[in-house]
Amino acid sequence: MTRWPDTRLQRLLGIEHPIVQGGMVYNAGARLAAAVSNAGGLGLIGAGSMRPDLFGEQVRKARGLTDRPFGVNLPLLFPHVHECLDIALNEGVRIFFTSAGSPRQVAGRLKDAGCTVVHVVAHPDLARKCEQAGCDAVVCEGFEAGGHNGRDEITTLVLVPQCVRAVSIPVIAAGGIATGEQVAAMLALGAAGVQVGSRFAVTLESSGHDAFKQAVVDAGPGDTHLMLKAHVPVRLLRNAFRDRIAAMEARGATREELAAELGQGRARRGMLEGDLQEGELEIGQVAGLIDDVPTAGEVMRRLVEDCGRTLARLAGPGSDDDARG
Amino acid sequence: MTRWPDTRLQRLLGIEHPIVQGGMVYNAGARLAAAVSNAGGLGLIGAGSMRPDLFGEQVRKARGLTDRPFGVNLPLLFPHVHECLDIALNEGVRIFFTSAGSPRQVAGRLKDAGCTVVHVVAHPDLARKCEQAGCDAVVCEGFEAGGHNGRDEITTLVLVPQCVRAVSIPVIAAGGIATGEQVAAMLALGAAGVQVGSRFAVTLESSGHDAFKQAVVDAGPGDTHLMLKAHVPVRLLRNAFRDRIAAMEARGATREELAAELGQGRARRGMLEGDLQEGELEIGQVAGLIDDVPTAGEVMRRLVEDCGRTLARLAGPGSDDDARG
Repeated sequence: MTRWPDTRLQRLLGIEHPIVQGGMVYNAGARLAAAVSNAGGLGLIGAGSMRPDLFGEQVRKARGLTDRPFGVNLPLLFPHVHECLDIALNEGVRIFFTSAGSPRQVAGRLKDAGCTVVHVVAHPDLARKCEQAGCDAVVCEGFEAGGHNGRDEITTLVLVPQCVRAVSIPVIAAGGIATGEQVAAMLALGAAGVQVGSRFAVTLESSGHDAFKQAVVDAGPGDTHLMLKAHVPVRLLRNAFRDRIAAMEARGATREELAAELGQGRARRGMLEGDLQEGELEIGQVAGLIDDVPTAGEVMRRLVEDCGRTLARLAGPGSDDDARG
Repeated sequence: MTRWPDTRLQRLLGIEHPIVQGGMVYNAGARLAAAVSNAGGLGLIGAGSMRPDLFGEQVRKARGLTDRPFGVNLPLLFPHVHECLDIALNEGVRIFFTSAGSPRQVAGRLKDAGCTVVHVVAHPDLARKCEQAGCDAVVCEGFEAGGHNGRDEITTLVLVPQCVRAVSIPVIAAGGIATGEQVAAMLALGAAGVQVGSRFAVTLESSGHDAFKQAVVDAGPGDTHLMLKAHVPVRLLRNAFRDRIAAMEARGATREELAAELGQGRARRGMLEGDLQEGELEIGQVAGLIDDVPTAGEVMRRLVEDCGRTLARLAGPGSDDDARG
């Protein structure tokens, strides 16, 4: 058994391992969330790409697939957020991860209903605001993360220590984490645990298209880029669509020109329908460390075991006595 | 005493602690390098901002200030590189860190002279080329690093594991490292040690201007940005000069327009002469974690002690038995 040096998150969420699966659009449905929860982590259903009826169906489905705690991710700028929030509460969900927007909008109501509330941030000042708003923990997500991202481009290695200094609630590190060694590194920085997105997007239970998963497996180290930095920053895998956006940005295209090129439904087209050239392929920089499409349970096993082995390696038996041998 | 879990770098460089001080332009002269070496790390004199006569003088001065090993950093695209290389060899320097350009240019000659050669890279493919060229180790420097930077924007958290997979020579992690917890995190990722730049730039022994050091102390979490990404990427602290460059880039300025605005001597003006508005202030994203101007020896003491305390924390006494308590 891996001995976790920090157990705050396990106690807060009722889980065995301090590993949260990100609530990624088009990837994080009931099957993935239940598989992660069954393996001892916390699965999240991502509401951001679902209409309320589908979201309710997925929550009920997940409840049928696991007896363990799972949660939902609600982007607060999402048009159906209040409807989805009601559905989740009615279905008995008690763990809410919120992102985008301000946690003040919903934290009070959720806390009154006895829920655990965790908000995703990309700057230590916002982590502080989350603590003041009553959040139980914060996800601190760095520049390397896939999909939507902060404007300040603060990397996980720099962001996590700043957030640990800024708040006393548990900090969950996110962005750039796909291996057990990286989990151990985040514990070294003072994180209570991690949120892992891309690695879980590329599993058998993820609802992303097989072609999307294979494109991530095939991606090299420098194949994702943070695009639209001046508008809505989003990290994308390189393809024809991304290259057109990059060329437009390089020549100083206006917000309106970019919005017209983006159009509607690009993320669905890329990640759910598998259009690798004209779709929006949201994935983190760790794409270059992802080589296969295992089960979510296998990912959990690797993260836990490799983290445990790393912690054991760091504990010894090296010595400074032979350092200059 | 801190027990280091990995002692490859200590043996390779003849040092006590696996901490290298970056050879930063306008900051890394003899005083800083000698102070770091005297404290058990490896000090580097940065040739990149020196004419050959000043460089030779600094190497001789450092030799008078420490009996311990120290090295030099030579940017291989620097016009005086061969002259400086001859000077360093003649003065008995046997540790060379090279950056920019290809290590093939000089690695053979330096290895024949019995030197240790370490090259700085920002992509795992280049780490592989360094190993093939005969380098003894590689510095893998991520997106968060100050000053000149790679084009692929790979962060330290993602880059280091990729480089550890790619090569069998020791990997020295760089970019975003200013605390002992971050040193421990890099050891978790499989790095043999770290190179620390910004934190040593803001010490009493650094030759940077006091106003520059104070500007870094005053900087907040999001106050550095990677600029000129399509040309020669460089991370700068926000000021009037940087804001003008940012505005030019946003409107799609050409390489020629940017070069004209950059002009000559901006880095000297900012870091050595202390012109905080019109100078180029090269510093890493960890500026937001730097709060004071201590001695280099005090920085070494903190890095070593805080890393040791972090490794002890990770080794126990947490347990999964109380995880669901």
